[in-house]
Amino acid sequence: MRTQVAIIGAGPSGLLLGQLLYKAGIDNIIIERQSGEYVLGRIRAGILEQVTMDLVDQAGVGQRMHEEGLVHEGIELLFGGQRHRIDLSALTDGKKVMVYGQTELTRDLMQARQDAGLTTYYSAANVRVHGFDGQTPSVTFEHEGQSHTLECDFIAGCDGFHGVCRASVPQGAITEYEKVYPFGWLGLLSDTPPVSDELIYANTPRGFALCSQRSLTRSRYYLQVPLSDKVENWSDDAFWAELRKRLDGEANERLVTGASLEKSIAPLRSFVAEPLRFGRMFLAGDAGHIVPPTGAKGLNLAASDVAYLSQGFIEYYSEKSQAGLDHYSQRALARIWKAERFSWWFTSMMHHFPEEGAFGQRMQEAELAYLVQSHAASTALAENYVGLPMQAR
Amino acid sequence: MRTQVAIIGAGPSGLLLGQLLYKAGIDNIIIERQSGEYVLGRIRAGILEQVTMDLVDQAGVGQRMHEEGLVHEGIELLFGGQRHRIDLSALTDGKKVMVYGQTELTRDLMQARQDAGLTTYYSAANVRVHGFDGQTPSVTFEHEGQSHTLECDFIAGCDGFHGVCRASVPQGAITEYEKVYPFGWLGLLSDTPPVSDELIYANTPRGFALCSQRSLTRSRYYLQVPLSDKVENWSDDAFWAELRKRLDGEANERLVTGASLEKSIAPLRSFVAEPLRFGRMFLAGDAGHIVPPTGAKGLNLAASDVAYLSQGFIEYYSEKSQAGLDHYSQRALARIWKAERFSWWFTSMMHHFPEEGAFGQRMQEAELAYLVQSHAASTALAENYVGLPMQAR
Repeated sequence: MRTQVAIIGAGPSGLLLGQLLYKAGIDNIIIERQSGEYVLGRIRAGILEQVTMDLVDQAGVGQRMHEEGLVHEGIELLFGGQRHRIDLSALTDGKKVMVYGQTELTRDLMQARQDAGLTTYYSAANVRVHGFDGQTPSVTFEHEGQSHTLECDFIAGCDGFHGVCRASVPQGAITEYEKVYPFGWLGLLSDTPPVSDELIYANTPRGFALCSQRSLTRSRYYLQVPLSDKVENWSDDAFWAELRKRLDGEANERLVTGASLEKSIAPLRSFVAEPLRFGRMFLAGDAGHIVPPTGAKGLNLAASDVAYLSQGFIEYYSEKSQAGLDHYSQRALARIWKAERFSWWFTSMMHHFPEEGAFGQRMQEAELAYLVQSHAASTALAENYVGLPMQAR
Repeated sequence: MRTQVAIIGAGPSGLLLGQLLYKAGIDNIIIERQSGEYVLGRIRAGILEQVTMDLVDQAGVGQRMHEEGLVHEGIELLFGGQRHRIDLSALTDGKKVMVYGQTELTRDLMQARQDAGLTTYYSAANVRVHGFDGQTPSVTFEHEGQSHTLECDFIAGCDGFHGVCRASVPQGAITEYEKVYPFGWLGLLSDTPPVSDELIYANTPRGFALCSQRSLTRSRYYLQVPLSDKVENWSDDAFWAELRKRLDGEANERLVTGASLEKSIAPLRSFVAEPLRFGRMFLAGDAGHIVPPTGAKGLNLAASDVAYLSQGFIEYYSEKSQAGLDHYSQRALARIWKAERFSWWFTSMMHHFPEEGAFGQRMQEAELAYLVQSHAASTALAENYVGLPMQAR
């Protein structure tokens, strides 16, 4: 079996890359160790930057996103018991973000891939990558009891933080940077109307809270909890009661509670691997970097990786130029580090860090007070939230 | 002995307050536990915000400052071996800062006080403040072997971080916020021309460095050193050699070295006391708050405290209104917390923090790279550096 680009992982990075390559006439096969149902069951963020929307359109799968996605022009910061709106569009010459769940985008991409008749191996076992440091890379795996070898020109590692691609790089060839935060996010998904038209990010003495949404009828709420906490400790009632304590009066009046569709605790991590290219293998998305979810940069960074990487492949196959592939790691990392900084900063400003003491808490309050008063500081937040520009070469 | 306002401390805060009160016809006496020579011998920062310059003019002591002070319209950030200029004036509608040593300003204020025939007790021993929680505050002290009691309407605590005023407040009445940084600044003063027209703030793998200046012929350089370091470990030659390693090629070509006039290590601390009023006693300047020196906010915050406090006294005596005094603590603290945030942030971004690891260092690099590329982020730095506006009531 042979293809031009073997893509490991059928999450949004892999599917988006596959679709863009297909549109450009580049043959690709995706190998995914989980089932399609499992991939769709993962609840992730749902705020798309313009860069991501453009890429989804370029991939030809933007129709439902434009029909059902909700355009947001601002966010609200809640601190000291008061809400302050950051007018993202006014501060960034009209830029917007779109609320459209990662699950929905994944579904659209799966459908498009199926419609195009492209090959995806789900539930593949023992996936291994070989020979990426030479001229003849390949991927071996087992599928429905059969062993397969997929020969290819390139391997795209879109297989997430725990994937096989990064793990297959020799230790000396990669540098990893990491910060683990001393708390997690307890998330609850419910079929209830969102408490507010826009997202509310709350810094409270009881910890961070986020009122997010997937649609006009589906809400996603988060609470900062200690890392030692367990989801079994949180009944739906306990979740809603704690959320109420972290919101202002108006939000409490409008909050509609209901049964949880999903409830889970996720740790917060910052992680970057350098470089993102190892011979004929490239890492994209969570395989190469993780951001804490504050500010919803994870999916958007995966999308910008895929934009740079697909450009590189297209230049390679249509223009016989290696320049795009040669620059991929550096271009992608320039944007990644800025988004890592933003996510780290936004996380640091909004969460309760008991170990930083009373002075640390006052620094947060002073930063938030300055932020909402200063046009420059509000603009810096807004331009990062809507997404920094892609880098030309 | 009686006066309207007893001022404890003859540093720039106390002297500036005394001069402003004198101009408004308010009687005041200053009591200082050190000698005048000792006060003048303390080497401190020398960057004045517009707010500070205006206040010095209002006090009628600005002549030499305008003649000899150097107007600066920008600063340089050195990181990754490259210098990047922040055009303070272009980013803040023409605002500027002035290089004029605190020692020089103190000398001008001492001269003006002497010319006006106002009373200052230097080298006062056993200074004590009394009765500020009632209607008849007083100050007792010994001077040239005599015991004195100074009765007054109000006490202004301008006596610095280690002064008697804050220490005399009952514990339950005051909240103190503090952060001590895990390093110090080794400073060297020399009669050599500055290495650059503007200040250079350097973030290097070897630690922070600052190229500052007092005049066209007097330079002040700083190196980040471990807290455990001792000034005896640093010969002048060792200082210059280390400084060279933290500067870029152009600075190394232009650097003129020479014998040190003064060399010392200062710890870095963030500190705020709340509130700043205790009955008929008010804290101003270092008595109420300390910033790390990065960004030179210490003297400027003292000046804005004095601006608010002198306004309060003037309203009290000329308009029989207590409003200014009643609002002093809140107004001053609003500006203090913002400057504390800026100083903490600028310190955190520019210094080497080994305990933050490789990820922390990359966050600094990403923040600096973003800062010099983003107009909004550069503006946020600039508007803080030149000084945030004073708060109207």
